[in-house]
Amino acid sequence: MDARVSFVTLAVRDVARSRAFYVDGLGWRPELEAPGEVIMFRVAERVVLSLWDRAAFEAETGAPAGEGAPPLTLAHNVASREDVGRVLEDARRAGAREVSPAVDRDWGGTSGYFADPDGFRWEIAWNPTPLGRLVVPETATGPAPRASDGDR
Amino acid sequence: MDARVSFVTLAVRDVARSRAFYVDGLGWRPELEAPGEVIMFRVAERVVLSLWDRAAFEAETGAPAGEGAPPLTLAHNVASREDVGRVLEDARRAGAREVSPAVDRDWGGTSGYFADPDGFRWEIAWNPTPLGRLVVPETATGPAPRASDGDR
Repeated sequence: MDARVSFVTLAVRDVARSRAFYVDGLGWRPELEAPGEVIMFRVAERVVLSLWDRAAFEAETGAPAGEGAPPLTLAHNVASREDVGRVLEDARRAGAREVSPAVDRDWGGTSGYFADPDGFRWEIAWNPTPLGRLVVPETATGPAPRASDGDR
Repeated sequence: MDARVSFVTLAVRDVARSRAFYVDGLGWRPELEAPGEVIMFRVAERVVLSLWDRAAFEAETGAPAGEGAPPLTLAHNVASREDVGRVLEDARRAGAREVSPAVDRDWGGTSGYFADPDGFRWEIAWNPTPLGRLVVPETATGPAPRASDGDR
């Protein structure tokens, strides 16, 4: 088995609520969707993030999904330290819960977290090490600064 | 915020046990590791899968990870229907738990599941639709057939 991830599928309680956050809030464009059932986004070259109705997910995988905080995070790496705070602020405006501030980490970079409507945690990270350069596209730029950024 | 996943980080109970499964069992090559703390693999262009000690994960994210089946799956897509069964068998040999047989799905392809040592489910999938072609590298091939395959 090659080391390859093609899809990351998250079980969500309300696909319409997830759509409101990711599409209306963050501005992502769906690659494919079946309203109320599933919505998919391309999140890397040959990788799709799928948000799937929890009942259908459980029926297919055969196991009731656990309660509590999901035991995973998804990281979205950015090209500069300043971008971390900007993206966290974008997420807050989109309705993200539990937004934590950017913190300098032992591994040499800076990151903060937010939770999506189901509690799935996203880490927004700037990683200046070789590992970080491995994952950030050369064309990556942060969100455009807003006029109001000067007020913060 | 761009639609981009850079890392998928799974909280695991025993990094050495995860290493035995993914490295010794499946033959994956770590991109980076700190024994007992974290082990990382490149799983797509600019995407890293990280298996991180659960206690450290909880300390940083600030939330005890939930019990029960993790509410997500990772899919590993393959280039042919026959590859699904072969990869599931590879996983079984590597010590995977709860290996389910390949099943034809409503969406037009075939897939089966296995669980890693922490219960994280992998779906091995052949998807002949345009969405499936989007994620499978042109160079993807299944594991080499084994002499013993003729016996099954």
